Amino acid sequence: MNRGTEWVPNWLQRQALTRPHASALVHVDGTLTYEELFALARRFAKRIAEAGVTHGDRVGVLARHGLIYAVAVHAVMQAGGILVPLNTRLTAGEISWQLNNVGAKLLICDPANEELAASADGQQRQGALLWTVELSDIRSTLTARDFGALMTLSEVKSFRLADVHAIVHTSGTTGNPKGVQITYQNHYWSATSSALQLGLDQNERWLVPMPLFHVGGLAVLMRSLIYGTTAVLYDNFDAQTVNDALSDDDITLVSVVPTMLYRMLADERRRPPSQRLRCILLGGSGASEWLLRRCQEEGLPVAQSYGLSEANSQVATLRPDDALRKIGSSGQPLFASDVRIVDDNGDVPAGVRGEIWVHSLTVTPGYWNRPDANAETFVDGWLRTGDIGYLDEEGYLYVLDRRKDLIVSGGENVYPVEVERAIELHEAVLEAGVIPVPDDEWGQVPGAYVVIQPGYDTSFEQLEAFCRTKIAGYKIPKRWWFVTSLPRNASGKLLRRQLVQWLNES
Amino acid sequence: MNRGTEWVPNWLQRQALTRPHASALVHVDGTLTYEELFALARRFAKRIAEAGVTHGDRVGVLARHGLIYAVAVHAVMQAGGILVPLNTRLTAGEISWQLNNVGAKLLICDPANEELAASADGQQRQGALLWTVELSDIRSTLTARDFGALMTLSEVKSFRLADVHAIVHTSGTTGNPKGVQITYQNHYWSATSSALQLGLDQNERWLVPMPLFHVGGLAVLMRSLIYGTTAVLYDNFDAQTVNDALSDDDITLVSVVPTMLYRMLADERRRPPSQRLRCILLGGSGASEWLLRRCQEEGLPVAQSYGLSEANSQVATLRPDDALRKIGSSGQPLFASDVRIVDDNGDVPAGVRGEIWVHSLTVTPGYWNRPDANAETFVDGWLRTGDIGYLDEEGYLYVLDRRKDLIVSGGENVYPVEVERAIELHEAVLEAGVIPVPDDEWGQVPGAYVVIQPGYDTSFEQLEAFCRTKIAGYKIPKRWWFVTSLPRNASGKLLRRQLVQWLNES
Repeated sequence: MNRGTEWVPNWLQRQALTRPHASALVHVDGTLTYEELFALARRFAKRIAEAGVTHGDRVGVLARHGLIYAVAVHAVMQAGGILVPLNTRLTAGEISWQLNNVGAKLLICDPANEELAASADGQQRQGALLWTVELSDIRSTLTARDFGALMTLSEVKSFRLADVHAIVHTSGTTGNPKGVQITYQNHYWSATSSALQLGLDQNERWLVPMPLFHVGGLAVLMRSLIYGTTAVLYDNFDAQTVNDALSDDDITLVSVVPTMLYRMLADERRRPPSQRLRCILLGGSGASEWLLRRCQEEGLPVAQSYGLSEANSQVATLRPDDALRKIGSSGQPLFASDVRIVDDNGDVPAGVRGEIWVHSLTVTPGYWNRPDANAETFVDGWLRTGDIGYLDEEGYLYVLDRRKDLIVSGGENVYPVEVERAIELHEAVLEAGVIPVPDDEWGQVPGAYVVIQPGYDTSFEQLEAFCRTKIAGYKIPKRWWFVTSLPRNASGKLLRRQLVQWLNES
Repeated sequence: MNRGTEWVPNWLQRQALTRPHASALVHVDGTLTYEELFALARRFAKRIAEAGVTHGDRVGVLARHGLIYAVAVHAVMQAGGILVPLNTRLTAGEISWQLNNVGAKLLICDPANEELAASADGQQRQGALLWTVELSDIRSTLTARDFGALMTLSEVKSFRLADVHAIVHTSGTTGNPKGVQITYQNHYWSATSSALQLGLDQNERWLVPMPLFHVGGLAVLMRSLIYGTTAVLYDNFDAQTVNDALSDDDITLVSVVPTMLYRMLADERRRPPSQRLRCILLGGSGASEWLLRRCQEEGLPVAQSYGLSEANSQVATLRPDDALRKIGSSGQPLFASDVRIVDDNGDVPAGVRGEIWVHSLTVTPGYWNRPDANAETFVDGWLRTGDIGYLDEEGYLYVLDRRKDLIVSGGENVYPVEVERAIELHEAVLEAGVIPVPDDEWGQVPGAYVVIQPGYDTSFEQLEAFCRTKIAGYKIPKRWWFVTSLPRNASGKLLRRQLVQWLNES
């Protein structure tokens, strides 16, 4: 049997047949059952196909509106296209770069991002087709006849497990973002591994108060699809709204980052969540001991997790009942995932730090069109994460440092080199060094050490305004220092660790 | 990435690390936690390896004792061998044939089957090594030092998904049994598909009151392993014991065949089962409307299912809440499985009967060493089941006739041709025709129409005694008729349908 041709029935069609009246998507602007979602996605898929998109073509989706975003994700799948989720906080230039990188044929956006999309589209050399999906497109009632016709349409009868479902861009350590390819197989193993770890309620309602264009949000959409259960979507995080939903809306699982959890705990109206809440899945970055203890006191079942785009989110998860016994740990690897800790001499013993390597069926087959990065990143089927950590005697993973100097700010990843490059584009700047600065609210924020060109003059405010035209707002340094030179090693490499020391001593 | 080399961490080792103190196996003769089971399986694996078994070698297991059987299954896996489950109701000759068919290197048995195993082994030309596992081998205490050493042994660090885990013999329609190869991939997809259909309780306790050497029993063992949950084993079915366990022992799922369910309903001491019981999974053969209505009245959540060895058990399952709305149906295909109904002209519309074809990642890659049967059975990746049925408008499967003349007696499959052959070996018999005879207790039993050689004489009792030396007891006809000739078509093929008509008219 040729394993590369393994396929499964079209997931959404299957759920529309087996659970037609179950809620697929719940959003303040409307609820869609699996039957409705399938019919809508089919209708949109027809439009996507009419735009010239065929099997394997890339389609960008730029939308903060959860319902529009989710319907677009399903429509692209039903059209056989490859989804390219775009972060709405990026600049037009950054979006344009990503669209060009994957050669997108079509860009779908919501009304709120129409201007940004048009601007990004205009900056593209090839110029993808642009399609704005209005809420009315989703709400308009399908006639019974439409409905019947759409249900029997079947351009895509099955999904090949090896096919790429999405390309998610992740910032590189050394320059341009890389497109992480995520296959249908990756999604199935991620969804089932998560169910094996957290259990599976047939009436699961998974709340996602985080942007869906991140791999964590996308993973929840895909898990709900595979489970045939409900994704509860919010466009923006609001602590009170989330707390209310946890108590009143039969939520069984919720994905948050520590910044969100801090704010939820600060909501004084809060009552304990419903008995049905099984787990608060905590991703993005390490939670403090204080946060974990507060959750324990409040009876909140928190599961700290470690994941990355290259592994289609979760790699390891700490069960709530281990939360205090193993403070600081991200738990044991998921059932189908394996973790090694490696240094220059190979695998290291328990308790010794090294680079975290991951093997899992959830791991990407590689970056889009980047043989160089793939050769560096994958060794004998193992993903070299670049993150530093150790395993304890019981096989619990402790993550010490994220990928080379990665800054995690409120759940968003910021790579220093990208910020440094943007600052250095300013004519007054000779060189810049960016490091994470601890922040109570965001966990970390970027901070910049800047050397001014001789004979030039500028201010922090000017640099900040300049950056705003180049990079997403969350990447812009919140702290600035002017210095006369940056610490470098003999070969000229910037020593960011030295900058961190300067910060700690200041 | 070479997909044929996909692997996952050693499942039992993983559960021993992540859920060391959870119960893996529960049996009247003892309970084993995952940690204990892993250590034991490792110790036995060492012994299996010492017997000369290396990766991919076949190992027969002949045991009715649930705990010995289950430990042997794990030991074979930990030694990298391929499990060959043997039905303890077979004759020595039948067992010997199966061992020879796969070239088994080792035969493991429990004390109760030692004589049968020795006799089967003696009939083998090559003669597999024989090893009797005593209960005391399992109960003997491991010292702390043994334990530590066993835990770190790691001959088998991972399972390749494409590797064959077991070869399960299934009787053929035309002669000798065929060995169905079941891969690790088949088990993962079967376990996760079942969880997607029935939900997954992290403290699942799955009761198996049926022999573990059937594919249904093996599937429960493997699901419990993959879930990291508990398999509750009984060597023999006893209605009162099972009813008591359902009420008192926190059972969440139970697998039975209709014959068992009838007896459970006849137990008048019965109280309703615990709130935790989510599903009674009903396999083997179709349940009567009366049975389903009785279950409904008693509040028993019955899920009728359709499955076969070639698909590693379940293909379709009827959800309990559809039980009465869709009486007679086996439900919709599991999430990752697809069903077509095909006749000589291709796919037929809803409501029209034809052969049931199955596509699923749970389907075997093929029969062991039977290119002829594989060529007949697999078409473009679809399994031709030989069973006849139809799909209704909502995609619910109705199974009308099992594989060519298959008789299902108390959950055991009996192929008429095998029984006819055995009878025809008797010198007094000219020819025999075997058909299913309806039976209140067993669902069906075999019945034989026999033509005596001119000049010979015999009796039903003599034929029955003769059969007992050739085939398993459940295959021996319970009803006999002497006739002067058998109905055949122009080319001489036996018309069993005509025999069924004789029976109905008698």
